[in-house]
Amino acid sequence: MRAPIAVPTPKDPGGGYTHEQHKRNASLIYDAGQMYRLTGDADYADYAGKLMLAYADVYPSWGLHPAKKEQSPGRMFWQNLNESMWLLNVSQSYAAIKDTLTPDQRAKIEADVLRNMADFLSDGSPETFNKVHNHGTWATAAVGLTGYAIGDENYVEQALLGLDKSGEAGFLKQMDKLFSPDGYYNEGPYYQRFALMPFVVFAQAVQQNEPEREIFEKRDGILKKAIYATIQQNYGGLFFPINDAIKDKGIATRELLHGVAIAYDLTGDTGLLSVAEAQGKYVLTPESRALSEDIAAGKMTDFDYRTMRLGDGETGTEGALDIIRASTDPDDLVLVVKNTSQGLGHGHFDKLGFMVFDAGREILRDYGAARFLNIESKYGGHYLVENNAFAKQTIAHNALVVDETSHFGGDVELGNQNAPVLGTFTDTGDLKITSAEIDTAYPDVLMDRTMAMITDAAFPRAIVVDLIEAHSDNPHQYDLPFYYNGQLTETNFKITADTTVRQPLGQDNGYQYLWRVGTASAIEGLSQITWLLDRTFYSVTSSVPQNSNVIFAEIGANDPDFNLRREPAFILRTNSLNGVSIASVIEPHGEYNPTVEYTLNSHSNVKSVQHFETGGDDYILIETKDGQRVGLGVSGDMTENAAHSVSVDGAVMRWTGPYKLFHSDRHQSEGN
Amino acid sequence: MRAPIAVPTPKDPGGGYTHEQHKRNASLIYDAGQMYRLTGDADYADYAGKLMLAYADVYPSWGLHPAKKEQSPGRMFWQNLNESMWLLNVSQSYAAIKDTLTPDQRAKIEADVLRNMADFLSDGSPETFNKVHNHGTWATAAVGLTGYAIGDENYVEQALLGLDKSGEAGFLKQMDKLFSPDGYYNEGPYYQRFALMPFVVFAQAVQQNEPEREIFEKRDGILKKAIYATIQQNYGGLFFPINDAIKDKGIATRELLHGVAIAYDLTGDTGLLSVAEAQGKYVLTPESRALSEDIAAGKMTDFDYRTMRLGDGETGTEGALDIIRASTDPDDLVLVVKNTSQGLGHGHFDKLGFMVFDAGREILRDYGAARFLNIESKYGGHYLVENNAFAKQTIAHNALVVDETSHFGGDVELGNQNAPVLGTFTDTGDLKITSAEIDTAYPDVLMDRTMAMITDAAFPRAIVVDLIEAHSDNPHQYDLPFYYNGQLTETNFKITADTTVRQPLGQDNGYQYLWRVGTASAIEGLSQITWLLDRTFYSVTSSVPQNSNVIFAEIGANDPDFNLRREPAFILRTNSLNGVSIASVIEPHGEYNPTVEYTLNSHSNVKSVQHFETGGDDYILIETKDGQRVGLGVSGDMTENAAHSVSVDGAVMRWTGPYKLFHSDRHQSEGN
Ligand SMILES: [Zn+2]
Ligand SMILES: [Zn+2]
Repeated sequence: MRAPIAVPTPKDPGGGYTHEQHKRNASLIYDAGQMYRLTGDADYADYAGKLMLAYADVYPSWGLHPAKKEQSPGRMFWQNLNESMWLLNVSQSYAAIKDTLTPDQRAKIEADVLRNMADFLSDGSPETFNKVHNHGTWATAAVGLTGYAIGDENYVEQALLGLDKSGEAGFLKQMDKLFSPDGYYNEGPYYQRFALMPFVVFAQAVQQNEPEREIFEKRDGILKKAIYATIQQNYGGLFFPINDAIKDKGIATRELLHGVAIAYDLTGDTGLLSVAEAQGKYVLTPESRALSEDIAAGKMTDFDYRTMRLGDGETGTEGALDIIRASTDPDDLVLVVKNTSQGLGHGHFDKLGFMVFDAGREILRDYGAARFLNIESKYGGHYLVENNAFAKQTIAHNALVVDETSHFGGDVELGNQNAPVLGTFTDTGDLKITSAEIDTAYPDVLMDRTMAMITDAAFPRAIVVDLIEAHSDNPHQYDLPFYYNGQLTETNFKITADTTVRQPLGQDNGYQYLWRVGTASAIEGLSQITWLLDRTFYSVTSSVPQNSNVIFAEIGANDPDFNLRREPAFILRTNSLNGVSIASVIEPHGEYNPTVEYTLNSHSNVKSVQHFETGGDDYILIETKDGQRVGLGVSGDMTENAAHSVSVDGAVMRWTGPYKLFHSDRHQSEGN
Repeated sequence: MRAPIAVPTPKDPGGGYTHEQHKRNASLIYDAGQMYRLTGDADYADYAGKLMLAYADVYPSWGLHPAKKEQSPGRMFWQNLNESMWLLNVSQSYAAIKDTLTPDQRAKIEADVLRNMADFLSDGSPETFNKVHNHGTWATAAVGLTGYAIGDENYVEQALLGLDKSGEAGFLKQMDKLFSPDGYYNEGPYYQRFALMPFVVFAQAVQQNEPEREIFEKRDGILKKAIYATIQQNYGGLFFPINDAIKDKGIATRELLHGVAIAYDLTGDTGLLSVAEAQGKYVLTPESRALSEDIAAGKMTDFDYRTMRLGDGETGTEGALDIIRASTDPDDLVLVVKNTSQGLGHGHFDKLGFMVFDAGREILRDYGAARFLNIESKYGGHYLVENNAFAKQTIAHNALVVDETSHFGGDVELGNQNAPVLGTFTDTGDLKITSAEIDTAYPDVLMDRTMAMITDAAFPRAIVVDLIEAHSDNPHQYDLPFYYNGQLTETNFKITADTTVRQPLGQDNGYQYLWRVGTASAIEGLSQITWLLDRTFYSVTSSVPQNSNVIFAEIGANDPDFNLRREPAFILRTNSLNGVSIASVIEPHGEYNPTVEYTLNSHSNVKSVQHFETGGDDYILIETKDGQRVGLGVSGDMTENAAHSVSVDGAVMRWTGPYKLFHSDRHQSEGN
């Protein structure tokens, strides 16, 4: 609290001195208010009050910011989003310390800072305030919190119901629109974390000031769902890197520190204490302090990490994020299938793409955003040119690419209009499975993908099964990339490596950023590739058309500024006149133990993968090297009680309903 | 103890079934004996006895192994090294359980297993037993332990003093010869760990059976020194990857579990409890159990990680491994300079090379061995062809390469005959420094290198200073590689990247395994390169000759089997008629914090590095961007009290003795 007070006249855009100084002041005011609340030490209140008064001296005189953005300009900052954030912090602090101020001081701060800014952000900026958009949430939350802080119900009403209090805009409308019914935010968890902050902070104030509004119960408890959905979307503490996500953001961010603390206050769910412990730090609120006390008191239980479908879109019908976990252990095998909608401007063209995580690490991965956040020497910390040109493109993903072009031709608007059509999502314990299809990503191609996690005694661990199909009447080239993480140890074919010259794999749509490092031909329609990461081996065994090739690639071509991470991939490539089907098994296996010098099961246990089709029904037959057979039936018609059958090697496999797992003999004989 | 007993007739070489089964049996017998000792449960003794008797039935009938190695063949195994290891384990178990056997059983096991094998390994294999070599230690330890187990002093005497008991060979001689006076083993820590096992196990038996021999006091406590030296050579739990080292071996290996437990038993040094806790597991011995009990009892203190010179060679005069640590914190900045001798057949051609570690990670690294230990699909788990062809070569190291050839022309014998000549090693707290020179690595080039760690208030953290010089009367090309770990963020020059075609950097001596990925010219004799790893930035700022180039490279060319890890490097390249001097500052700086979205000091704090020379004396002047100047004087003549002076920018800098650190004004004004 000894920092000298500096309230500079607005001048710099984001990142510049005056911008950063006003952000710092907001943090100082907020922290001082909270510390006063927690300790009762008058020095804190005194400091916060002085800073607020310093702003009261100058704020009314500030017109629009000299470096103002065209849309939604601010006065203290170049955009009013930052002004909303400032007021959100300061109004909370004012509520905490106002009793320590004289009537004159209160009058001055309320008139010249709080009301002046709240008026600017509400009536003065209707296009932001009334917008059903994340920036609107920051504005309404800031104005609503100001209302509670100074006791002006009018601000609260406007915040909740829109400027005209009709309910057509405002915070409640935003609660209805910005999350799906499952609490998913359509830009993905990296952005969800940020969007969540004003929701939980203002909702908590509503709950404390007007509990009769039952704000946390609205829309079937949507805000709690949103907090839980954000937590569910992490692995190893980091968010699933969907869309333009910076990979090292996760549950330890400030927004989630508040979110988890508030959720625990509301629910008493002791599983949240595990999340708090994994976060490893606290914020200056009574709710956060309660977390640390209850952890110390030994109340912690495991968080309920679950297999779940998070529907996307306002009504939950614009695709879904499908999360499949082998167990509740957060470090166990996880499959994430991106059957969501595009996710607006930060969305990636990765329809039906997927990621696999295991043993605390990424196994089959997504590049995330091409950006070095806050690192000035890397294009000022902004999104790099490689973000649009590579990271967003389909070839940068574990997703099917047709004719070396991206989904929707790389057109965001087209992407936003077309979500995948979902198939059934089922969890029977041994079989966890999802499917989806989309016929708009390419003009004349219908793609569908079914991905399952299967537990069977034929395999020591759960495996992932992937059936991806493209249906088309026209000739196309199909590329199916797998961005594997680790060191290649074995393939069932000979690789012709590009040992003395490397060249880019293509010219456009992200292909120009990949070096081709080797090529191979699948052997009799089978491709089997094994790699090692840390102490576990992973194999992908794929049934592919006879003429298929395998391309080995590495990120980093056409990268003059060394902006991209060097990460390897293999790509299954098929040219076909009439579509393609590829069935794969993704299998974690074995153990490499360098300390005691042994290696177990370094080879895949899969002997073959075969795909059979009868009518619209599919059957994938997996045969292990020790003669076990595991089958998976996938129905073309997913109605609940329809009967299905597929001819498999002379036999007919029959089942009812969308999916059927046919266990191995070993599994059955072991009484499972 | 329910495993069925299987004692197959010898047939397979290393890795095959009979080989592995006999190894497994030795472990079972050993563990059962130890468990009996710890628990008194007769079932364990019973099982061990049964297995020994099963061997007694068949061992005498076994002649030399059908797949025997030409040198040092075994009977149960293809080489008698494995037979020594087997007996080392089994004889200890026998000592533990013999009281539970009948006299007939004892007679049978002693005659048909223990004596039969001990005779084979001693009188029957004199060339191994009498050799002053690690394999000899396994043989003498096994035979000596057998002597104690059956009460035959003759075996013990032969083990300690050689077959003829003259003392010209045997365990005591090995103790004198195989470690340097500082406890360094000349193949490096990866091999030291393995070599240590028979020493500590047999010495402990000597201590328990004949304490009057004071074996742990011999040669000034050499065995304790060897254990401590092995521990000192780890970072983040893993051994410094010197020579043909597999990188994921470290202190948690079985050999060090025994070593630390025995050292603690001998010394009571509670710092060893920290090492044991970092090991995270225990072996089945009373000494190991005592460790865990004392940790539980809260006796643990920090291990004394130190800055030290470990002399190499029998008399400590064949070079040295120089370890410089910023603090006793094991995760703090560490500089390792390889001023050692060649290290025999597993040695790398990396004279005066170095590694830097920080924040628990490798920062400037050594490739280690090119080998996937025990991974069958990778050339049977053996050393890969890339081990000799790349990993051992000078260009694979942070070491000076002349004319794209390796030190000693890649001739191991020549390497073994020529160690560096050491300069003074000094630790004054603020200045920790070493130097060495060698004129035999290249026919007409004298190389010398001085490396220091400096603490000065001009830098928030310790920095490393490197002065490397080559003296020659002939024209040469000089390449100085830096294998940096992380993502390049900034350079003081423009890189011309190889964006659309990559080609190998050279044809031979390891250069063929490097892709050239970019080239640049140093700016006015200065090269400054910054990268980011995890949350810390690192910069190397080098003063180079005016015409120097910087080559950016990546491992992985000419690698048809995907055997090599893709790791980046930059190489400072100079062509010169008369030698070269390069002075560099290696500087950890700043912080990237993605969670709370800030980045501090992402730019190097170094404005310039200059090298001045007067006569044989050198002076390195480091100027920071905020105007501080730090100097380092390095004397040509290292005698203690000689006076030195160098003209620096018109001034004359004077000092006495081998080195002098000239602190910055800021450092002095802060009263340091
Ligand atoms: Zn993506
Ligand atoms: Zn090496």
